[in-house]
Amino acid sequence: MAFNKNYFPRQEGDPPPLTAVCERRVRFEEVDVLGMVWHGRYPSFFEDGRIAFGDRYGLTYFTYVDNQVMAPVVQMHLDYKSPLRFDDRITIETSLHWAETARLNFVYTIRNPQGQLAAAGYTVQLFTDLQGVMQLMTPEFLLDFRRRWRDNHWA
Amino acid sequence: MAFNKNYFPRQEGDPPPLTAVCERRVRFEEVDVLGMVWHGRYPSFFEDGRIAFGDRYGLTYFTYVDNQVMAPVVQMHLDYKSPLRFDDRITIETSLHWAETARLNFVYTIRNPQGQLAAAGYTVQLFTDLQGVMQLMTPEFLLDFRRRWRDNHWA
Amino acid sequence: MAFNKNYFPRQEGDPPPLTAVCERRVRFEEVDVLGMVWHGRYPSFFEDGRIAFGDRYGLTYFTYVDNQVMAPVVQMHLDYKSPLRFDDRITIETSLHWAETARLNFVYTIRNPQGQLAAAGYTVQLFTDLQGVMQLMTPEFLLDFRRRWRDNHWA
Amino acid sequence: MAFNKNYFPRQEGDPPPLTAVCERRVRFEEVDVLGMVWHGRYPSFFEDGRIAFGDRYGLTYFTYVDNQVMAPVVQMHLDYKSPLRFDDRITIETSLHWAETARLNFVYTIRNPQGQLAAAGYTVQLFTDLQGVMQLMTPEFLLDFRRRWRDNHWA
Repeated sequence: MAFNKNYFPRQEGDPPPLTAVCERRVRFEEVDVLGMVWHGRYPSFFEDGRIAFGDRYGLTYFTYVDNQVMAPVVQMHLDYKSPLRFDDRITIETSLHWAETARLNFVYTIRNPQGQLAAAGYTVQLFTDLQGVMQLMTPEFLLDFRRRWRDNHWA
Repeated sequence: MAFNKNYFPRQEGDPPPLTAVCERRVRFEEVDVLGMVWHGRYPSFFEDGRIAFGDRYGLTYFTYVDNQVMAPVVQMHLDYKSPLRFDDRITIETSLHWAETARLNFVYTIRNPQGQLAAAGYTVQLFTDLQGVMQLMTPEFLLDFRRRWRDNHWA
Repeated sequence: MAFNKNYFPRQEGDPPPLTAVCERRVRFEEVDVLGMVWHGRYPSFFEDGRIAFGDRYGLTYFTYVDNQVMAPVVQMHLDYKSPLRFDDRITIETSLHWAETARLNFVYTIRNPQGQLAAAGYTVQLFTDLQGVMQLMTPEFLLDFRRRWRDNHWA
Repeated sequence: MAFNKNYFPRQEGDPPPLTAVCERRVRFEEVDVLGMVWHGRYPSFFEDGRIAFGDRYGLTYFTYVDNQVMAPVVQMHLDYKSPLRFDDRITIETSLHWAETARLNFVYTIRNPQGQLAAAGYTVQLFTDLQGVMQLMTPEFLLDFRRRWRDNHWA
């Protein structure tokens, strides 16, 4: 099934997205009575994707805590394309798309063991302080991160 | 926080959405280390909303099975507005919006115990036969349901 | 199916157990591909039972926090007797059994809509301070609670 | 903390248990507001253990289905020894203990990244046919499996 949604269109001058890939195996408890992974479990797949991204690029929950911020998900979108089954080894590709403001725009692509698209989606995270107050200024560590990104640090 | 997204704009001549309301109490296991309900649990809240809708309007999992179809979620969208906490009694309002084709468009609004908007979102469901083959024709039971809807059966 | 396990045999002179009852409806997401509630979801049923118990007798998570303690589960046991199905309205009966030491011994009985035994089990909770250090002395609020229990406060 | 419970004592003449080991990383969604893995998530760790065991010894969900049986968990016991934290890489050791009758007795040991005991427990599985009727006779494939076990097939 073709799928060419462009959740966060790249603007002229933006560095290309940064991408990390991880795998996961579908658990018995994740499959419903119809033999398919219940749609409400995919946020956990996305979370695994963000973790893999954080591992690779140094942008983790601990980074946030060290910098006195939290990064709550304020929007999540999922498009389901083909069912996943018990014991499927799935591949989760997670890309951070460039943004100028205090936000993280992640795009996720999940593939089944045959490499076919199973699902795609995105999340948007904003920043708050540790009391939950929204931070409109981009945190300094993220500005640093973006400087390295623009400098092709990981290319 | 104001919130006036119009996920499925009503077309001229469409009957108004049908709505059901249910309550749920936040479980200890649903709250993360930051003291907020983890964003990935809200699909379960939406599911409760659909169940309450089905109870009220006679459109349930068993209706689908009796009519030899399944109604998988093919799209889900969530906007998170304010955190939910352990033991919060939340209100889930679920509305089915009119569509002419073989699909179900549900909109969800979740409110915290103070009545403030905590989250909103939507799902899209399509129909397959019991082997998972997509059905482009609207199932007869849904055409019947829509006739009653148009006739203000529940007004 | 007969079931007469006596998880915490009552000693001579012990007040009878205190009991609370609650209901829950099996969710679609809790049922596995075999059409039965996955065995690993029952701890959530037990948790609902403890919550109902706490509501009735004033022994909640907030009671613990107010008294600067936590009450982690250190042992859990489950006996599965007959399967639960999607949409089953189940009954959870939760009893606190008398103990002299710094612990909470809860017994749970889960019944299906026909009133048949579906599962039973128990949990043991001990007390720690807010840093997680085990408390061997019974907290004062629990001694108070037990005085009321012995005085038939809820009889 | 010492832990030397002997859930299924080995009888004279029994072959030694068969053991498989796997790893897992604690997810954000598995940790509660106290910063510890919620006790009700450990059944999923045990399930991963059984999957790893099945991979190694050829005793999987698919083996059961191919042989027209199911192997429901009829008893589960968990002893919690020390908390697990977000992002902990945990080790799950799973051992099948010898039994003569139509049952599977698994013992699980979970260790934290420092190698300390975090939890232990066991499950008992019996066999039913695909309609859920209990099978008192040991299935032929399990008798074969036990012959290989006794013959030190995996030693």
